[in-house]
Amino acid sequence: MSGAITQSPRIGIIGTGAIGGFYGLMLARAGFDVHFLLRSEYAAVSDRGLQLNSAVHGALSLNPVQAYANAADMPPCDWLLVGTKTTGNVELAPTIAQVAAPDAKVVLLQNGLDVEDSLREHLPDSLHLLGGLCYICVHRSGPGVVEHQAMGRVNLGYHSGTAANDEVRRQAIVEEGAALFHQAGIDSQAMPNLHQARWHKLVWNVPYNGLSVLLGAGTTALMADESSRELIQALMAEVVQGARACGHEIAASYAEQMFTMTESLTDYWPSMYHDYLHKRPLELAAIYARPLAAARAAGCELPRMQALYQALSFIDRRNS
Amino acid sequence: MSGAITQSPRIGIIGTGAIGGFYGLMLARAGFDVHFLLRSEYAAVSDRGLQLNSAVHGALSLNPVQAYANAADMPPCDWLLVGTKTTGNVELAPTIAQVAAPDAKVVLLQNGLDVEDSLREHLPDSLHLLGGLCYICVHRSGPGVVEHQAMGRVNLGYHSGTAANDEVRRQAIVEEGAALFHQAGIDSQAMPNLHQARWHKLVWNVPYNGLSVLLGAGTTALMADESSRELIQALMAEVVQGARACGHEIAASYAEQMFTMTESLTDYWPSMYHDYLHKRPLELAAIYARPLAAARAAGCELPRMQALYQALSFIDRRNS
Repeated sequence: MSGAITQSPRIGIIGTGAIGGFYGLMLARAGFDVHFLLRSEYAAVSDRGLQLNSAVHGALSLNPVQAYANAADMPPCDWLLVGTKTTGNVELAPTIAQVAAPDAKVVLLQNGLDVEDSLREHLPDSLHLLGGLCYICVHRSGPGVVEHQAMGRVNLGYHSGTAANDEVRRQAIVEEGAALFHQAGIDSQAMPNLHQARWHKLVWNVPYNGLSVLLGAGTTALMADESSRELIQALMAEVVQGARACGHEIAASYAEQMFTMTESLTDYWPSMYHDYLHKRPLELAAIYARPLAAARAAGCELPRMQALYQALSFIDRRNS
Repeated sequence: MSGAITQSPRIGIIGTGAIGGFYGLMLARAGFDVHFLLRSEYAAVSDRGLQLNSAVHGALSLNPVQAYANAADMPPCDWLLVGTKTTGNVELAPTIAQVAAPDAKVVLLQNGLDVEDSLREHLPDSLHLLGGLCYICVHRSGPGVVEHQAMGRVNLGYHSGTAANDEVRRQAIVEEGAALFHQAGIDSQAMPNLHQARWHKLVWNVPYNGLSVLLGAGTTALMADESSRELIQALMAEVVQGARACGHEIAASYAEQMFTMTESLTDYWPSMYHDYLHKRPLELAAIYARPLAAARAAGCELPRMQALYQALSFIDRRNS
C-alpha cells in the first residue's frame, strides 16, 4: 500500500533464494514496494514471511511479504532483480516479459561472463538489461530464511536496451539502480563497463566456487593450506591474464585484495558448493566456459582454469 | 630347498603388497628361491600362503611361503625387489643393507622420478641400485591376496653402483634382471636410460593416479567422459613436454598408446586411490613434485600438473 502513494519505483524479485531474499527484504524494509515471485518456498514465505539472520544488520524479518506463486498475478514492476541460477536464464524470458513494466530495468544479480546474452534475444526490446555483481556472503538455511555472513555490495553495469548508444541515459539508469540500493543501506557502484566488472568478479568466483566443490572445502580450509593458497593465487592470476587479453586491465593489487579479504571471512561455502550438495546443475558455463572461450578467442590459454573446468564438468555430470 | 642346490640367484621381496606379492609369487612358481619380508600380513601369509587371482594367469597360489617378519632372519639375497611405497624409501635403507648379499642388485619397483636418489646415499656402495617400471594393474584385496587385472611388464634400468661407469657391465646386470622375469613368464625390457624410462611411466601415472583421487573415479568413468578425457590428454601432453625439457624425447604416439590402452582396461583404480582410501600418505613427491621441479629447473612450467599437485597436496594433508 505504501508503495502505491509514493513516486518510488515498484520492485520485483525473481527468484527469492539467498540473493533475491536478502536484497528484496532490505529494499522492502527501506520502504520500497517489493513483490516477490517464488516457487517451492511460496507457501512458507506466505505463511511466515522472510527472515534474515545477518552478521552485519542483525536479525531482521519481513512479514507479511507480497509473495506470488504465479508471474501472471504480479503487478508490472519498474525494476526487476533476478536472483535465479544462470543455468535457467533462457527459460526465464517469458516470466520477465510478463512482470516487467514497459520501460523496466532488469538486473541479473548473477556471477559469470555474458550471462545476459542468452536472455537478451528473448526479451522485449523496450526493456533495459543490466548486470549486478554481488560481493556478499549469503546462503539459504531454510524456506524463507537467509543467513548473511559478510559484505553486501552490488556493482551495477548496463548491458543492453534502448539506452545502449546513449551514454548519458545509460549512466543515469545505472546510477538510479545504485541509488535504490543506497537507500536500503547497501553499498553499490555504477560501473562504466559491465564486461569488465564481470571479469573483476571472476577473480573471486573462479578459484573459490570451483575449489569448494573439487576439494569439498570452505574458505577457511582453503586459506589455511599452503598448496590451496598457491593454487588460488595462480587461478586468480590466470583470470587477470584472461581479462587483459580481452582488453580489460585488472590491477594485480585487486587480486591480492580479494585474497586478503577472503582470509578475513568466517568460513564461507560458495553458492556452487550448495548447488553441488543439492544436486543442482553447476554454473560452469557462466563462470568457466565463457571466460575461457573469450580468452581463447583473444589468443590466451588459461591452463589451470581449463583443468579446473574439465574436472568440474566431470563432477557436474556425475552429480546430475 | 630347491634354490639352494641350483645356481639361480636368491631373491628377496621387500614389501609384499600387490606388486611384491605378484612378482614374488610368479618368480617362486618359476622355481626361484624367493624370500618374502612382511609386516602386517606376516601371520596371514605364513598360515595361508599367497593367493593370486589373475585375469591373465588364472588362480595361482604359493604355500608354504618363505615368509619373514624380521629382516634379521632372512638369508642374504642376490636380488632384492622392493615393492613398498616411495614415501618410506629413506627408512628402508637399513633393512635393505641387512638382507642384501655383498654384490646384490636392489630393484625399486616404484613409480615416480628419482625415487632411488634419497635411498642411494644410505646404501652400501657395493650394492647395485636399479629401478623397475611396472606396467601392471594389480591390487591387494585382502591379507596375502592379490588381484591381477591386466598386463605385467617390468622395464628395468640401472641407477647407481659400481657398474655406473661401465656400460657393458651395467647392461649385463639389467639384462640379467630382465631374464629373471622372462623365466617367470613376465615381459621385461632392459632400458638404457632409467631416467627416461621413469618419465615414460609418468605419462600414465600423472593423470590417472591423481585424477582417481581428485575425482573419486576409476579408469572406466574417467575414459567415459569427454571433459576428463581432455584433461587426461592435456596432462599427458604436459608430461611429454616436461620430459623433452629435461632432454628425454617421448613420442606423441606413446601418450596416444597409453590413452588407448587405458580404454581397453576393465575398470582400474590406481594405487594412489587405494592409498587415499586407506589414509596412507600419497606418493606426491615421486609422481608430481620431483618431475615438476626437474621441468622447472629446465625452464619448463607444467601448469595443469602443478594445479593437480596442489589440489592433491591439500587432499593428502586433510586425509592424514
